[in-house]
Amino acid sequence: MGVFKVLEIKEGVFENNDRQADLLRKELKQRGLFLLNLMSSPGSGKTTTLVNTLNRLKEEMKIGVMEADIDSDVDAHTIAKQGCKVIQLHTGGMCHLDAEMTRQGLDGLESGELDLAILENVGNLVCPAEFDTGAVKNAMILSVPEGDDKPLKYPLMFSICDVLLINKIDVLEHFDFDLDAVRERATKLNPNLKVIPISARTGEGIDEWVRWLCQEVKQWQVEA
Amino acid sequence: MGVFKVLEIKEGVFENNDRQADLLRKELKQRGLFLLNLMSSPGSGKTTTLVNTLNRLKEEMKIGVMEADIDSDVDAHTIAKQGCKVIQLHTGGMCHLDAEMTRQGLDGLESGELDLAILENVGNLVCPAEFDTGAVKNAMILSVPEGDDKPLKYPLMFSICDVLLINKIDVLEHFDFDLDAVRERATKLNPNLKVIPISARTGEGIDEWVRWLCQEVKQWQVEA
Repeated sequence: MGVFKVLEIKEGVFENNDRQADLLRKELKQRGLFLLNLMSSPGSGKTTTLVNTLNRLKEEMKIGVMEADIDSDVDAHTIAKQGCKVIQLHTGGMCHLDAEMTRQGLDGLESGELDLAILENVGNLVCPAEFDTGAVKNAMILSVPEGDDKPLKYPLMFSICDVLLINKIDVLEHFDFDLDAVRERATKLNPNLKVIPISARTGEGIDEWVRWLCQEVKQWQVEA
Repeated sequence: MGVFKVLEIKEGVFENNDRQADLLRKELKQRGLFLLNLMSSPGSGKTTTLVNTLNRLKEEMKIGVMEADIDSDVDAHTIAKQGCKVIQLHTGGMCHLDAEMTRQGLDGLESGELDLAILENVGNLVCPAEFDTGAVKNAMILSVPEGDDKPLKYPLMFSICDVLLINKIDVLEHFDFDLDAVRERATKLNPNLKVIPISARTGEGIDEWVRWLCQEVKQWQVEA
């Protein structure tokens, strides 16, 4: 427990990333492996949300986590403590992961037996939105202290996600943050977006999020 | 008041950005114009800090602001309300500004008469750190809700900055954030880094920050 591999991933060599992403998704479907791509700004609570998610789901399905970071192994240490399979991916300064880089991570994770692989992408609201990783679903976290104007400023990220977790709602009263305004701005960009307010710290809303994720994984495996 | 130009900036064509940045800095020196590059994650309080800074300094010197964003004019509206010269730069999806893009912004701002130009860079802790904009000094904001592990995870950004503002210290009690740990981690990467805890909302620490900035501007102009 608490042991993990560190993989220095190499930049993708394929010109057509969308094609590589579709190929990876097709392969994942055949294997019945669900890949979730989790994105957000630095410090919005991706890792704490993951810890909470793993604790609810780890008895129910086999889960592996890929922690992508420019540097450091802080998050992989945190995840490994939960007794989950985890690999730390170092991007070598790169600000995003593409499908080929994600494939390197899945290989390093030895994902053969898994039901669910989660990629914690580099903390960044800009670049990761531009590269399809091959994930089955994209999730993003926006935290209350970041402000309710973010859908206006980073529209692509909100457009390409399937689910938006609004985190740190336990500190809502200390910030000028209009939950309804975010919901309206985000769903205007992306009418199919599922919005779930959560607090990764107190656990509020995690049930709904885990239910959503569980259902998506099962559906993916039934169709496999 | 409240009127500003929106400029769609073009990607830089020069291969050697460092050389372009040095050229721009040399030119700024001759003109006695101080350029500050302000960077941070999305939502750490760049614009609110700027509003506070402008209100303290606008009687003392001529200031212009360049608001760089992927999309939207939210921040330029906020700055224009302070009665300051401002231009909104749209990066067309680009995650950073290089020296040539900054030069386009300065031209658009009509910066001829200014003492101080401030570039509010794209909200991103990764890419902007890799491109010298030609600024005289680099400042970054880390806000309390983002967490005290950020120097470990985004070391380059902390390494290239001259001053680190630790914002939102008014909500310190609601978060697990160790101010001393951040200071230690950041100055280990960058021993010359000036660290100033602030609250852009309550105004705490802004005096020290404005004093630092004022002194840097004056020194730059004396040497010009």
